[in-house]
Amino acid sequence: MSGNVVDTNSAWIADKCWMFGHKVVWHGGVGDYLEEIGDACRLAASRADVVFVTGGLGATLDDITLEAAAKAFKKQMVFHEDIWRDIQTFFRKFGRECSGNNKRQAYIPEGGKPLTNRVGTAPGVQVKLGHAIFFFLPGVPRELYQIFRDSIMPWLKGRAEAAYEQKFLRCFGLPEASYDEKLKGLDLGPVRMSFRVTFPEVKIKLVARGKTALQDIKRAEEKIRKKIGRYIFGADDETLEMAVAELLKSSGLKLALAESCTGGHISNLLTNVPGASEWFRGGVVSYSNDLKTGIVGVRPATLKKHGAVSKACAEEMAKGIRKVALADIGLAVTGIAGPTGGTKEKPVGTVHIALATKGKTGHITFSQERGRIAFKQFVAYEALSLLRRHLT
Amino acid sequence: MSGNVVDTNSAWIADKCWMFGHKVVWHGGVGDYLEEIGDACRLAASRADVVFVTGGLGATLDDITLEAAAKAFKKQMVFHEDIWRDIQTFFRKFGRECSGNNKRQAYIPEGGKPLTNRVGTAPGVQVKLGHAIFFFLPGVPRELYQIFRDSIMPWLKGRAEAAYEQKFLRCFGLPEASYDEKLKGLDLGPVRMSFRVTFPEVKIKLVARGKTALQDIKRAEEKIRKKIGRYIFGADDETLEMAVAELLKSSGLKLALAESCTGGHISNLLTNVPGASEWFRGGVVSYSNDLKTGIVGVRPATLKKHGAVSKACAEEMAKGIRKVALADIGLAVTGIAGPTGGTKEKPVGTVHIALATKGKTGHITFSQERGRIAFKQFVAYEALSLLRRHLT
Repeated sequence: MSGNVVDTNSAWIADKCWMFGHKVVWHGGVGDYLEEIGDACRLAASRADVVFVTGGLGATLDDITLEAAAKAFKKQMVFHEDIWRDIQTFFRKFGRECSGNNKRQAYIPEGGKPLTNRVGTAPGVQVKLGHAIFFFLPGVPRELYQIFRDSIMPWLKGRAEAAYEQKFLRCFGLPEASYDEKLKGLDLGPVRMSFRVTFPEVKIKLVARGKTALQDIKRAEEKIRKKIGRYIFGADDETLEMAVAELLKSSGLKLALAESCTGGHISNLLTNVPGASEWFRGGVVSYSNDLKTGIVGVRPATLKKHGAVSKACAEEMAKGIRKVALADIGLAVTGIAGPTGGTKEKPVGTVHIALATKGKTGHITFSQERGRIAFKQFVAYEALSLLRRHLT
Repeated sequence: MSGNVVDTNSAWIADKCWMFGHKVVWHGGVGDYLEEIGDACRLAASRADVVFVTGGLGATLDDITLEAAAKAFKKQMVFHEDIWRDIQTFFRKFGRECSGNNKRQAYIPEGGKPLTNRVGTAPGVQVKLGHAIFFFLPGVPRELYQIFRDSIMPWLKGRAEAAYEQKFLRCFGLPEASYDEKLKGLDLGPVRMSFRVTFPEVKIKLVARGKTALQDIKRAEEKIRKKIGRYIFGADDETLEMAVAELLKSSGLKLALAESCTGGHISNLLTNVPGASEWFRGGVVSYSNDLKTGIVGVRPATLKKHGAVSKACAEEMAKGIRKVALADIGLAVTGIAGPTGGTKEKPVGTVHIALATKGKTGHITFSQERGRIAFKQFVAYEALSLLRRHLT
């Protein structure tokens, strides 16, 4: 209500509900007041068969969700000895003191069933109130996710009439509208396709329901890959850097980077992947020209003749870093991130990317004026895509 | 409702309302159905004097928000010639075709007043329905923000009985509970203080209302700074890297980095700041030992005797990168990000950070087991904080 926190729980829960074919019809938010919470619970129960309530299960005095719900449906709050034992055990495990307030967390509405919380003190609660089944969950996402996965997913699944399956195909290399255009008219059978931009990527979402959902999605995916397969780098949780990491790992080749305008962003992405040291030698952030010549081995004459943002410089950076870092592949980026530094010939957004292997060098160039940080992200994706194409 | 998109608009609007002393009491979400939208509008109007409705103002057939609201309150939809002209002008400006569907966007409920949208086609609408003033706004955040700032902020401000002011003090260096403890009992007058963790930072939020709000916050800030000033690196939108950049810029000193376990993350943060090339020479991501010895100048004997994750190695990295990059300050990080690579003596999470200036070297070490990416973020903040302390 104060605008300090964005509610991500509603969307997370809705997504899980749809996966099992349950339609979400309403959500609402209120402040920590007995009457308003009670009202919201009654309203929800009048609109749906299942209600999820998050937040307000903590140990402090403004955590009154269960009490409010019980009151709204004229139920008693009942003390559960086993919940109280679990809370005390939880505190002992972390060597912390259990305060008297925590005892409040052992009271739940009559008829309710506690749902074990393995990562926090407050258990979730499942209880029938009015005509609806209520699930009360902690507001802390980490705790909510655990209880939901452990106790609620199986429950939802057991009641799914026709579960939904979904798959995201993650793409880079074309503007959003172009995917739409290239896939227009494709017969995907019962599979629904939609697009989502999460810059710099475009995600294609495939959804199907029923017993043949997985096969239907697989067939749709094959058709899509025939049209735009080269732009699809991964599925679901697979990032571009993970896809590149996998390719490097299986090829046995070692990579080194020379980054100028991306300022370490590519290196940062790649080292987010566990085990990166197996295939990543390291790199140089050659932000000043002295580092380009002094460490990476770009010839001063090249800088003088073509400038730092040039094909020649990018190629010498790629070749140089490959050699100096004892790598199989050298990848180099040089450009103008802005907001200053642009000229008429080389405006802000100009980039040269080069990739060097033993005896061979590839190069791409383009210009993309964007905000500084978005520019770095976009160029990093272009560079990793060049590497991915090379490895495939 | 589908869980595909997290609603950030509600929190954004709520934050603005509080700023002007208006209390937010309820929010709700429904799908794109005439009856459900109408219901939600009536419910909102029965609970508040002002209602914000976002989304569903677009040109496609499922954009029915205005129609639903008008129907719920038995109002006619009225065609506005001037809106239609604006829409056509907007399309011409971008050289695009205006489709017939766009004409639907020129209809608004009777008595309504359009609110100019400078970044999209659909105008906002202000209209009294029932006892409440309704503001209808596009769901696209960029468009919503513009209309809100242009047309609604002044309106809210004009009706504010006692406007709120707020300030965030951004801190790093202590766990959340310690700030609370150190500031306990501090008399901040009418200023409300609260804490927010946005890992790896802790933000202290100060809120005051009325005519003396700004002075009240200033006095509270002074008291807080007396207690924990060394942990406060910035206010409101100022990031840690921006604070460090400012210090480097005014000192005239040049920085170089040697990053091992952070894998380029520190470099990436610093180069997000416009004009970084003025004070950032660049750096080396010395992910393999060959780069530590070959480029940065760590002695092989040091690696052999102490290992790569050691005080000796960090110090040689800091001294080495300072020299090789022709910088005034060398900052170096070496550690074990995990999940593998830990030993009994040096478990996952062990870090050494060193800072070298002309003739002097400082060093800190600690162990923090976290997920790989969180670890990189935390270590980057520790390194930048060390640098910040040095520069102040």
